[in-house]
Amino acid sequence: MISKSTIKRIKSLSLKKYRQKEKLFLIEGDKNVLEVLQSTFIVTQLFTTKAFISEYPKYTKNAKQVVEVSNEEVKKLSLQKNPQNSLAVCKLPQETSLPEKLKGDLSLFLDGIQDPGNLGTLIRICDWFGISHLLCSPDTADLYNPKVIQASMGSFCRVKIWYASFELVNEIATRSDAEVIGTFLNGRNIYMENLPARALLVIGNEGNGIRESVEEKIARKITIPRFTQNIGAESLNAAIATGIICAEFKRQQSFNPNSDLFKIK
Amino acid sequence: MISKSTIKRIKSLSLKKYRQKEKLFLIEGDKNVLEVLQSTFIVTQLFTTKAFISEYPKYTKNAKQVVEVSNEEVKKLSLQKNPQNSLAVCKLPQETSLPEKLKGDLSLFLDGIQDPGNLGTLIRICDWFGISHLLCSPDTADLYNPKVIQASMGSFCRVKIWYASFELVNEIATRSDAEVIGTFLNGRNIYMENLPARALLVIGNEGNGIRESVEEKIARKITIPRFTQNIGAESLNAAIATGIICAEFKRQQSFNPNSDLFKIK
Repeated sequence: MISKSTIKRIKSLSLKKYRQKEKLFLIEGDKNVLEVLQSTFIVTQLFTTKAFISEYPKYTKNAKQVVEVSNEEVKKLSLQKNPQNSLAVCKLPQETSLPEKLKGDLSLFLDGIQDPGNLGTLIRICDWFGISHLLCSPDTADLYNPKVIQASMGSFCRVKIWYASFELVNEIATRSDAEVIGTFLNGRNIYMENLPARALLVIGNEGNGIRESVEEKIARKITIPRFTQNIGAESLNAAIATGIICAEFKRQQSFNPNSDLFKIK
Repeated sequence: MISKSTIKRIKSLSLKKYRQKEKLFLIEGDKNVLEVLQSTFIVTQLFTTKAFISEYPKYTKNAKQVVEVSNEEVKKLSLQKNPQNSLAVCKLPQETSLPEKLKGDLSLFLDGIQDPGNLGTLIRICDWFGISHLLCSPDTADLYNPKVIQASMGSFCRVKIWYASFELVNEIATRSDAEVIGTFLNGRNIYMENLPARALLVIGNEGNGIRESVEEKIARKITIPRFTQNIGAESLNAAIATGIICAEFKRQQSFNPNSDLFKIK
């Protein structure tokens, strides 16, 4: 039987102040839980069903403590309406210092992304496109918010994420010879541009876009062309726009016969 | 003062059965409300603040009834944590019969998209890319779910949406000379393909992908190449993948110097 105080403690991890006090965070969803059990994160407690334990003995043994629970109990512990079979409590990792240089051809800077679902989806995009470094302004949603973890579908285990001011990130970009590019409605059409071989792509807040102090430092303003005469179609969701730009960046690097870098993968 | 029964009636519109019983649906978010007031939808009641009414007199007069409320009252009526200044109750439009032919070069068929946020985002993608026809399997999330409306950011006013079986939609595609294409992890790299001049793009369910009976009818299986060695990066969010494919389709039609259709817009 799961005690009321355990339920209360687990649910409190939906709030940043309790995550920071307890130095713990919560992971829901079987895919996320399986990924974290195979990662370098330390799982202090795994709450899961008998069926899950016998299906994944190799992974469940990586948890410091395994608590066998019924599906009903998973529901009581979960923050979700329709939880799956497992929940993991993990140690918040130590913050690591900012990298000296950006890794690979493309990195992202999120300038105040607020929606946890968007942040999780952006982490998943980084994972798919092999973007190793994701940098976030201090006012971006918290990586360890359970909704971010959920939407990342395990990708939070593989993408390196830092919170830092744009000033610091811009210095790293300069050291890495990465051009700082950002999306604006009045920017240059990405399909008519030769995107740079190395870039730091800045993504603005969902409602307000990129803030002025950051905009000043952007070397190239780009846009996704609108293919409609519809007057009201004013923007794309921030994560959708990022997905499209990352894809076009990688296409130009890898599949564009006009690119110097053309190589078929 | 807003009565308790009004609050109850408004909140009940979060459920499909009450929407169908009352033949009404709910619109939240100032942008959505302003869009619907300029559309052909019939707004039976507009609940909004004095400030909103005096800012948008031209639009608010399009509502059959305007109820002036305080910000506190908006909060009481809203399904959202942080509502804005207005809520509109609209008549559910009459269902229209399926089109004889698909309009334009690209249409979408959603094969069981479940997440309301994803559906709303997909409608927004259609609006941006000038995709006029969005067809949904009967088990796709309901367009009039307030979360769908919210995520569509007004685009639901401009994109034509029907619910129909794939069999019927496939017949329309055949009549329209549109090739049926679908995304699969083992499909052909979109960046190495000449995408067809007219297509019906099929998008699968978030967890299970495209169902077998639909897969059999797909003429060309495509994929977005993965640019990572990360083993766990298994998929992209359905809406992100759709955004990337729609963008590449439009790029090939409009900006690809190798395309027969090359024309700079």
